[in-house]
This record gives sequence, structure tokens and C-alpha cells, in this order.
Amino acid sequence: MTERLVWQDVEKARSRIAPFARRTPVETCRTVDEACGGTVFLKCENFQRTGSFKFRGATNTIASLSPSERARGVYAPSSGNHAQAVALAAKLHGIPAYLVMPEDSNPTKVVATRGYGGRVVFCPATHEGRLEMAARVGEETGATLVHSHDDLRVIAGQGTAAWELIDEIGELDLLLAPVGGGGLLSGTLVAARHLLPHVTVMGCEPEGADDAARSLRTGVRVMDFVPRTIADGLRTPLGENGFEILRRDLDDIVLVSEKEIVNAMRFVWERAKLIIEPSSAVAVAPLLFGKVDVRGKRVGVILSGGNVDFGPYFAALEEQVHGSR
Amino acid sequence: MTERLVWQDVEKARSRIAPFARRTPVETCRTVDEACGGTVFLKCENFQRTGSFKFRGATNTIASLSPSERARGVYAPSSGNHAQAVALAAKLHGIPAYLVMPEDSNPTKVVATRGYGGRVVFCPATHEGRLEMAARVGEETGATLVHSHDDLRVIAGQGTAAWELIDEIGELDLLLAPVGGGGLLSGTLVAARHLLPHVTVMGCEPEGADDAARSLRTGVRVMDFVPRTIADGLRTPLGENGFEILRRDLDDIVLVSEKEIVNAMRFVWERAKLIIEPSSAVAVAPLLFGKVDVRGKRVGVILSGGNVDFGPYFAALEEQVHGSR
Repeated sequence: MTERLVWQDVEKARSRIAPFARRTPVETCRTVDEACGGTVFLKCENFQRTGSFKFRGATNTIASLSPSERARGVYAPSSGNHAQAVALAAKLHGIPAYLVMPEDSNPTKVVATRGYGGRVVFCPATHEGRLEMAARVGEETGATLVHSHDDLRVIAGQGTAAWELIDEIGELDLLLAPVGGGGLLSGTLVAARHLLPHVTVMGCEPEGADDAARSLRTGVRVMDFVPRTIADGLRTPLGENGFEILRRDLDDIVLVSEKEIVNAMRFVWERAKLIIEPSSAVAVAPLLFGKVDVRGKRVGVILSGGNVDFGPYFAALEEQVHGSR
Repeated sequence: MTERLVWQDVEKARSRIAPFARRTPVETCRTVDEACGGTVFLKCENFQRTGSFKFRGATNTIASLSPSERARGVYAPSSGNHAQAVALAAKLHGIPAYLVMPEDSNPTKVVATRGYGGRVVFCPATHEGRLEMAARVGEETGATLVHSHDDLRVIAGQGTAAWELIDEIGELDLLLAPVGGGGLLSGTLVAARHLLPHVTVMGCEPEGADDAARSLRTGVRVMDFVPRTIADGLRTPLGENGFEILRRDLDDIVLVSEKEIVNAMRFVWERAKLIIEPSSAVAVAPLLFGKVDVRGKRVGVILSGGNVDFGPYFAALEEQVHGSR
């Protein structure tokens, strides 16, 4: 890595995304506080446009492109939050976006991506099929790749969520963010280290996709593993840039089980009344299940997103409503 | 009705509940605005303590009791949000609360009510059984009844939500609130009429429980009907006091179908990322499905609560997680 991400990059990202991204609210929940004994501030990226923090990094990247790059548009392989984020960020900049999505993608996500103006290109649902189709789309269109997590512009954009949280709340003892590809956590780390020199920053990762924890422990980035977690946003291996940033500065990673992820998600839905997706619940679970001692402490949590597939739930509900009339 | 609820009652309620109730946030959602063409402000009583606005009225009532009344405690027949609200409000005042709940109540609600310190007394799951047991509990304990919707102290308490909304947002063209027993809507009306003389206030009611609409149309309160709606908070007949207040001052009632309720709830979950219960969705549906023209207007909506039974959803999810490991 020749370039190094610095605080000023996050600051610049903040000005770039300001006209497009939402400054998301910070919520509190008494029941969460009572459960962990600390004072918890939830940075609600589930309220971000397109439903996740991904919109920040995508917007910062697209806003950084040269006029000639913009003219050719952008592309991204993604079946999830990143696809929607790139689609909307491109639309708001008036440029085309090509989203390479596996042919077995959730139809709701395809509809959402198209709803944001994205041009969906289907690919075979294999790693190779995806790479091949992405390369072809890049070649044929001359579009620029918007990486989902390991581009420094993307990382700088993701760091703006922590910036806003700290700007609003002030001092924190601990800051938690989920880690998958590492874009959110490394951006969070760069912002937090500058703004709050004494804060402890921890990544939160599913036991079933613990490549970041293992990579940091051994000093060698684990790239070959089969993720087993419902936190679909965290199945990606840690990126190279993210790894370097975390290795230099991160305090620790805390692992949570699948059961803890599900229970934390349910707790936040039922008690905080916020829709969060499993990946976000990964950063709440350590507080609820005693994995970190936060008694008397001020804790920030980045709730990364809220894109949940409620299809089966509502199918059952509509059945019930239909049946009762 | 000899007493008449006035603005000053809402003002007094506000001071009384201030140490206990949460000043809930007002949220906005770009997708909701785009769907209706207006600017919509969602007053999030789903974030209120115990998960609904009911906590306001219960707290105002209990805080108004004399020392000797307090000593004997309070009771309330309820299987829903009111039971939890009374239980917590009583606990915070250090007095006992007896909640008369049907023996077939949702176990989650019984657990929640007990979790707030309430003493649950089961009764047969019939109208008569409930009345009989409530009367017995009242006699045996000497406790004071906290009515779920038709006591003027309760109505004044519920009006504080609209007060806060208007205090924060200022001018509104239209204010929407769901109507069941009428406590929330009539309190909202008293507050809004004083603060914003030109605002239009409309009640929102399920077609399957349209007693308020029929009562106001005919001038005779409809009390004998079988509600058919998933909006369980709105199955109660309109109360006497509520009827008088609405008859005097309400602009109109808008009816929504069961399908619209379910679709509005799904829209708010998926796009606004807020957990709301069906009763709240009743006040959002008119905006999403063109029942009122709000293009270019500023619209306030009281999201009444967010207590949803996610049991079946999570049972399926846990099954899935368990199976995948």
C-alpha cells in the first residue's frame, strides 16, 4: 500500500457527501442502557439513504471522479446494500451505474436497485461468474469500478458516520462497529483516532466469519474461508487496505455467535423499535451479552444498516388478513 | 359531560409527565415524502416508554392522584399497551398496579407487564368476565381505575404528544392520528386547536372498525359492533368524552382497508426503518394510498406505538440459523 488514509481524507469526504447523504440521527434506548449498564449512542445508518452506510463511500467515490470518468459511468458487482448505494449515488450525479448481480439475487433487491436508477446486469451465481461479468461490463462500458470496501475513497466516506456521531455526542469511552470487508471499521477507526485520542475502538465480527480476528491475530490476511453467518453484509473477506489500517490501530475484535446476533436483532426491534439488519446486530450483541464491560461508560455503536427481507413475514400476515375478512 | 377538557389541562399534563415520559423524536423519511408529495413529520410514540403513547395518559392520571388514592394503588383491565403503560407509570410512582388480563393474553405481553412491576390478575376472555374481575379487583384493593381512553386526565396526557410535535416542527397544514377509543385523537385535537388554529385535524380509522366515523356522521355514538381489523389497538368503541370532543372540533375521519394497513406498515418498516404496529400504520396509509391530498403540504402523523409480536418471525429465523450451523 503506497497511499495512506489520513484524517483529512475523511474531512474531505464529509464535504463531498454533504449535499447527498443524510446526517443520520443518533438514538438512545433506555432498555439497552439497562441491559449493559452503560450509556449507549446508536448511530442510525439504517436511516441512511438506501438503508445503509454504503451510500457514504459510494457517494464519496463517485463525487471524486474526473469529468471524463463520470461520463463513462460506474459499475459494481454486488447483490446487496452496495448495489443500491452505487445506483442512487450515480443517479444523483447524473451518470449511469451498472450493477452486476447474481442471477439468484433476491428479487426485492433487484427491484430496489432498479428503482434507484441502476442498470442491472445478471451474472452466474458463482465467484468466477461474477468476476468475469464484472470485468466484461468494465471493458465494454469503460465505466469505473466502485469497490464495495477496499478503496481509500470508500473507506474515507464510511468514516464520516463516526465523524457525525462524535461531533454530536462528544466524548466516548468505546466505539463499536461491525467488520466484514473492513471498509466501515477502518474508516471509523481513522475518524475516531483523530477526534477522540483516548477512545477504545473495537470491531465486532460473527464467529462464523471470523477472518478479520484471525488475520489480526496471525498478522496474515485470511482470504480463503467459507463464511457461515446470517449477517450477510459481513461474509466478505477483509480487504488489503482495511487490514493495514486495522492492524496499525484497532484495539480489539469481539466475536459473537449466530444465536447472539439473532437475539440482539430481536432486542433492538422489540425494545428500541429500530429495524436493523443482522450485520448491525453484530455490533450490539457484545453489549447485550456481556462480551465487553461497559458499566458506567459512554459507548457509540454504528448501526450499519436496516435492509431486511420481510417478504415471508408479510406473506403470512396478508394471508391472515385475507382469511379474517 | 360536565367537565370540559381545555388546553390548560394538556399544559399541566406536560409538566406532570415530564420527569417520567420520554420526549420522543420526530423522524422524517424521504421515501414517504416522495410517495405523497408532502413533507411528513412522524412523531415517534413507538419510541415512548413501554412502546406506545399510552404511557403519557397513564402517567398523567397516576401523577394526579391524591396521597390516599396512591396508597391504595391503581388497576386497569387491558391486554395490550395500556397494561404495560399503567404498570410502569405505577412503578415509577412507587405504587402497586393490578392489571386485569384475559387468560388467553399473549404471553409476551404478560411477561412485559410483569417486567414493569405490574401485578397480573387473569380473567375469563369474555367481555363480562373482564368487567366482573375488574370490579372485584377494584373493590378488594380499593385501587383507582386508570381508564384506557375516556378519562379526561388520560386524554390530556395523550395530547402532550401533539404538543411536543408542534413545539418542535411549528406550522402544520394537516395532523393525522389513529382513532380507536378516541383518547389519542381527542387529546391531539385539543392541543392542536390551541397551538395551530388553522391546522386540519383528521382521525384515521380501519374500515373494519369504523364506529367513530359512523358515530360522527349520525351524531349517535355507535357502541355495539364487532371490530374486524388487525389494528388491535383500534378495536375499542369510541368513548363518551372522546366523542364529545371530536364532534365539536374534528375536521374529518379517513377510513383505510386492511390491505392498506398492512402495506403501510410494511412501507414504514422497509423504507423508514421504524417498527410501528398496525394501529400506527392506519395513520400513515392515507398518505401512501392517496386518501388525502397533501401535495406541497406539511403533515404531522402521530405514530402511536410499536409493540409488534415478532415471535413467529424469530422462531422461523432461529430454526434457520440452527439448521445452517
